[in-house]
Amino acid sequence: MIDTNLPIYLASKSPRRKKLLKQIGLEFRTLTFDFEEKLIPYESPVIAVKRLAAEKMNEANSRVKSDAIIITADTIVMLDGTILGKPKSKIDAKRMLRMLSGRTHLVYTGFGVMNTSNNKLLIRYEKTSVTFRNLMNNEINDYVETGSPLDKAGAYGIQDDFGAVFVSKINGCYYNVVGLPLANLYKSLEEVM
Amino acid sequence: MIDTNLPIYLASKSPRRKKLLKQIGLEFRTLTFDFEEKLIPYESPVIAVKRLAAEKMNEANSRVKSDAIIITADTIVMLDGTILGKPKSKIDAKRMLRMLSGRTHLVYTGFGVMNTSNNKLLIRYEKTSVTFRNLMNNEINDYVETGSPLDKAGAYGIQDDFGAVFVSKINGCYYNVVGLPLANLYKSLEEVM
Repeated sequence: MIDTNLPIYLASKSPRRKKLLKQIGLEFRTLTFDFEEKLIPYESPVIAVKRLAAEKMNEANSRVKSDAIIITADTIVMLDGTILGKPKSKIDAKRMLRMLSGRTHLVYTGFGVMNTSNNKLLIRYEKTSVTFRNLMNNEINDYVETGSPLDKAGAYGIQDDFGAVFVSKINGCYYNVVGLPLANLYKSLEEVM
Repeated sequence: MIDTNLPIYLASKSPRRKKLLKQIGLEFRTLTFDFEEKLIPYESPVIAVKRLAAEKMNEANSRVKSDAIIITADTIVMLDGTILGKPKSKIDAKRMLRMLSGRTHLVYTGFGVMNTSNNKLLIRYEKTSVTFRNLMNNEINDYVETGSPLDKAGAYGIQDDFGAVFVSKINGCYYNVVGLPLANLYKSLEEVM
């Protein structure tokens, strides 16, 4: 695994992202700050997630004073050209899951990797398509009642109990759908060393 | 989730399969017996995994005396028409990982679901293609030294620390690669109720 003396900072509040970095054995600290994820009308999803990852990197970089590796990320879920954010309520979560049922949507994650000791910076993205099987109303209701969909873009977690049985197939990186494209991120970390 | 008064038996020794069934909140018991997974020359992978899942079901069914739901499964990994089994040694594991590096292989899981109270039986399969990025020799060596590849067909676990950063993309069901296609299995369980 990555071998460095530099401290690694993950600039994200997401518990899923923390879990993914732990899974690949990285030692890191988290860096949290408020950041408004402003979307610009008609901006393509690729441009949007890369821009947001870069903006978060600027913000994170201004806060880390010593040499370090910094990781930022931003994920959006798209269906038919519409971005699905985090649901505002249980009713909103049910509406989103009914929209996703039986169809294929896209998950984009933009991420930034920076080594402040040599100023190497990479801003990349990953796209995964995700197909849901047809969901029954009681399945949607039961899942929303667990509360898990409420803090997730698109109102589901592919790694959740229900999420796992809703997704019939994906095309692309699985971990991208969880929140960080691990293979691409790992390769990028090696490149900035 | 599945609502039944019948006991559910998972006829598998695989700790990954147990973990997956727990993830979707199923209460189950495991049923273990010795079973020789004999491959027949020139048999197609789909026929092979379905035949093996069916043979395991026959064996499991003869051992469960009361009404129950039984789940069996068999997974094979194929590269260029060759089946990759579990590695025989660390050297063999390194050889397999070098073969998989930078290429796309196929993972097939055949599974059986049976309700002995109404004799409904389903034998199905799922296929997922898995693409590895180019691996460096030291990555392969470090992974094999963890010991994890030794009990896994194809010498990797997509959910492992190293496995996660080796796989750049998949096409199909992610959980199929871990050992049980959860969405398809769940739907099948509902169908035999």
